[in-house]
Amino acid sequence: MFKILLFLFLSTFSLSLVAQDSDSLAIKKIANEVLINGQAYENLRYLCKKVGPRLSGSPGAQKAVEATARMLKEAGADSVYLQPCMVPHWERGEKEIGYIRTANGGRRNLKLCALGNSEGTGSKGITGTVIEVKNFAELERLGAGVIKGKIVFFNFEMNPTYITTFSAYGESGGARRSGPSKAAALGAIGVMVRSLASNPDDYPHTGATQYNDSFPKIPAVAISTNDAEWLSSQLKKKMMLTGYIRNTSRMLPDAPSFNVVGEIKGKQFPQEIITVGGHLDSWDLAEGAQDDGAGCVQSIEVLRAFKAAGLQPNRTIRAVMFMNEENGGRGADRYLELAKQHSEKHLFAVESDAGGFSPRGFSLDMSMERKEKISNWKGLFYPYGVYDFAAGGSGADVGPLKAIGTALAGLRPDSQRYFDVHHAATDVFESVSRRELHLGALSMAALIYLVDRYGL
Amino acid sequence: MFKILLFLFLSTFSLSLVAQDSDSLAIKKIANEVLINGQAYENLRYLCKKVGPRLSGSPGAQKAVEATARMLKEAGADSVYLQPCMVPHWERGEKEIGYIRTANGGRRNLKLCALGNSEGTGSKGITGTVIEVKNFAELERLGAGVIKGKIVFFNFEMNPTYITTFSAYGESGGARRSGPSKAAALGAIGVMVRSLASNPDDYPHTGATQYNDSFPKIPAVAISTNDAEWLSSQLKKKMMLTGYIRNTSRMLPDAPSFNVVGEIKGKQFPQEIITVGGHLDSWDLAEGAQDDGAGCVQSIEVLRAFKAAGLQPNRTIRAVMFMNEENGGRGADRYLELAKQHSEKHLFAVESDAGGFSPRGFSLDMSMERKEKISNWKGLFYPYGVYDFAAGGSGADVGPLKAIGTALAGLRPDSQRYFDVHHAATDVFESVSRRELHLGALSMAALIYLVDRYGL
Repeated sequence: MFKILLFLFLSTFSLSLVAQDSDSLAIKKIANEVLINGQAYENLRYLCKKVGPRLSGSPGAQKAVEATARMLKEAGADSVYLQPCMVPHWERGEKEIGYIRTANGGRRNLKLCALGNSEGTGSKGITGTVIEVKNFAELERLGAGVIKGKIVFFNFEMNPTYITTFSAYGESGGARRSGPSKAAALGAIGVMVRSLASNPDDYPHTGATQYNDSFPKIPAVAISTNDAEWLSSQLKKKMMLTGYIRNTSRMLPDAPSFNVVGEIKGKQFPQEIITVGGHLDSWDLAEGAQDDGAGCVQSIEVLRAFKAAGLQPNRTIRAVMFMNEENGGRGADRYLELAKQHSEKHLFAVESDAGGFSPRGFSLDMSMERKEKISNWKGLFYPYGVYDFAAGGSGADVGPLKAIGTALAGLRPDSQRYFDVHHAATDVFESVSRRELHLGALSMAALIYLVDRYGL
Repeated sequence: MFKILLFLFLSTFSLSLVAQDSDSLAIKKIANEVLINGQAYENLRYLCKKVGPRLSGSPGAQKAVEATARMLKEAGADSVYLQPCMVPHWERGEKEIGYIRTANGGRRNLKLCALGNSEGTGSKGITGTVIEVKNFAELERLGAGVIKGKIVFFNFEMNPTYITTFSAYGESGGARRSGPSKAAALGAIGVMVRSLASNPDDYPHTGATQYNDSFPKIPAVAISTNDAEWLSSQLKKKMMLTGYIRNTSRMLPDAPSFNVVGEIKGKQFPQEIITVGGHLDSWDLAEGAQDDGAGCVQSIEVLRAFKAAGLQPNRTIRAVMFMNEENGGRGADRYLELAKQHSEKHLFAVESDAGGFSPRGFSLDMSMERKEKISNWKGLFYPYGVYDFAAGGSGADVGPLKAIGTALAGLRPDSQRYFDVHHAATDVFESVSRRELHLGALSMAALIYLVDRYGL
């Protein structure tokens, strides 16, 4: 009996060694292809420098649709097609103006920008006493008695002691996401939000606010972290300061747009779909290099690497450029809707939407059994510096696929630099490292190779 | 018996849990101190923007000695002192000129700079046929018959498929380090070396060459990777191309300089020394932010964090700014010499000289027993994203301490961006992330905390 067990153990062991060995060779082939011939960086250059900002509904977004469709064809996709969807169409309008009145009748201009989806102030702007709050509890404590008629200054600092910057973003991001409506519920006339940036800088970082329809939609702007520090210090000295905001941003009727899809047909289980994606829309203030041009060109690179390395997948691999992640998620909704309509079987989906930095691992949103299966492959990723396979969210675009039982993952790059540039004018091509971008692409390709080979 | 073993096991286990818990709290205290109040970034700004380049023997190096001595005092060091040493004093001279003759009697200028320690060409420069070699075997194959009287172009590309860029640097770096003398041995009159850069760019990356005294010291320059690609493509089309180099660099007599040392006296074993260091000298073309301003300000930050967090170490902790790592290592030699002279007991030394990027781990150069002891602490580093504890070299400055039995370690940050800026004009303050720099500092402080508490 013991001998039989030993034999079984050893034969499983050696089979598994052979599999691991051929897997590590295949992954090495993919890696070398990406590191030597990778096109993601040059595709990103095009997306940033030739297309530029690509807010949902804008001409830039349409140019990006056309550009990435072409890139997918050049990458060797068997088919490339568009998925039409309607998207919110918000426009920033004229350059925003904002300042704080100073003692001698002067003014101190603020570096600010309207939050995405924000209503405008009207051409005359709004003027009001500025009230600082450090958290929502403080806002509630002050109540309508204090807040009514005022401009609320949400000074929620990103907690520097959190090692993963996304934790701090999640915690402090409430100010931007729901702060304007919470302030409006107490009668505020406008909102200034401290930019969600990890480090002091002079750039306003925009991002979507979501109005609660039960309350007035009051204008909301982000101010730079340096201005937030200054304003807070001034408010400590003087009890009352008057602020002015003028923005002409507005929401227009929904506009037509598209997800862009490229796929390689699987040879054995073509009906089983593996999705790799990023989002194509970006904020209007920057090139959207890290957020999320990187994820788009990495996803295209995954297809290109399979083709160039001569790996014919068993399942169908799709690279998807999702539209409208930033202020609506309509592309993601549409992708799920079409999947349901066509009764598609979505086995696995992975998203890159945390920047094109050195990959550190993957967060996994799937059943325990599936997590364990993926964890067994960890050793194959160590040579690439990819260590972290932890439970966690995937990405806003692939997330909805959970409803149809898809195993989800998110690429987790090093997060330290991301919020230096996130949603600000500094999110440009030059902030991306070619090697880091390509390492992220090859990590996703490797994971997809394994899921494709062994299923989940 | 079993019960006794179980008891022993459980009591060791729970003791160890208590220790781990108090350790993780102490490390968290250090981490928070560095992440909230860290001064490394502002110290680096000063070193880069107010001091600037600080090549051994230059006025910049002397300013850096004074500046870091002041920073160590401000960090709260119990004592700060200088260790005098003589250093090589090389000067670049006038801006180098170099070009390739083109068909129509024109010229194509090259982006180039003299290698550190290089002799000059004389004011008239040198002209010669350019011969490309891709490796040393090729050079030997061509032999004196071909090489004599020529300018050798060492086109050793950094292998992009190595995941750790230092591996590629080690491999291809031979061209810069020993190429000039190998070419001179075959009668070459000058050398152009492809810059050791991970990515195509337009900057020459300098660095030391070491002449072999048995052969003539011929002038040697680095050319940008883009120029190397261009030159190689031209040489494929035309068999013969003529190059010109002019540089007036020269080696002057040795100059006096210093290591800068700051220390906190240990309360229990003051005679046992733990060293944390980086090197203060930099190349003359840039601010030396990543190489190695980062390592210096991180080492100062380790002392500051201990003081600010109110941790009184058992052993003596020394932050050392080593002089002359780049072209001689005289500061490191002097440090060892003085340690021997004073019969100091050097328990442990860790160096940061791989950039101020996100820390990934430590390389360990010590006995197996000591490695195992450190490996047992790994779990304490996981929350900070520090995973890799592997055998490997430490750093050029602490390395000599091996001779007196010191356990050595090197901070290992993410290596992907390092050779984009290494030894080039792009190695400036702006290439460093505040959070990444501070994470590196707190990782070293945490390791030193553990070595100080438990010995090695």
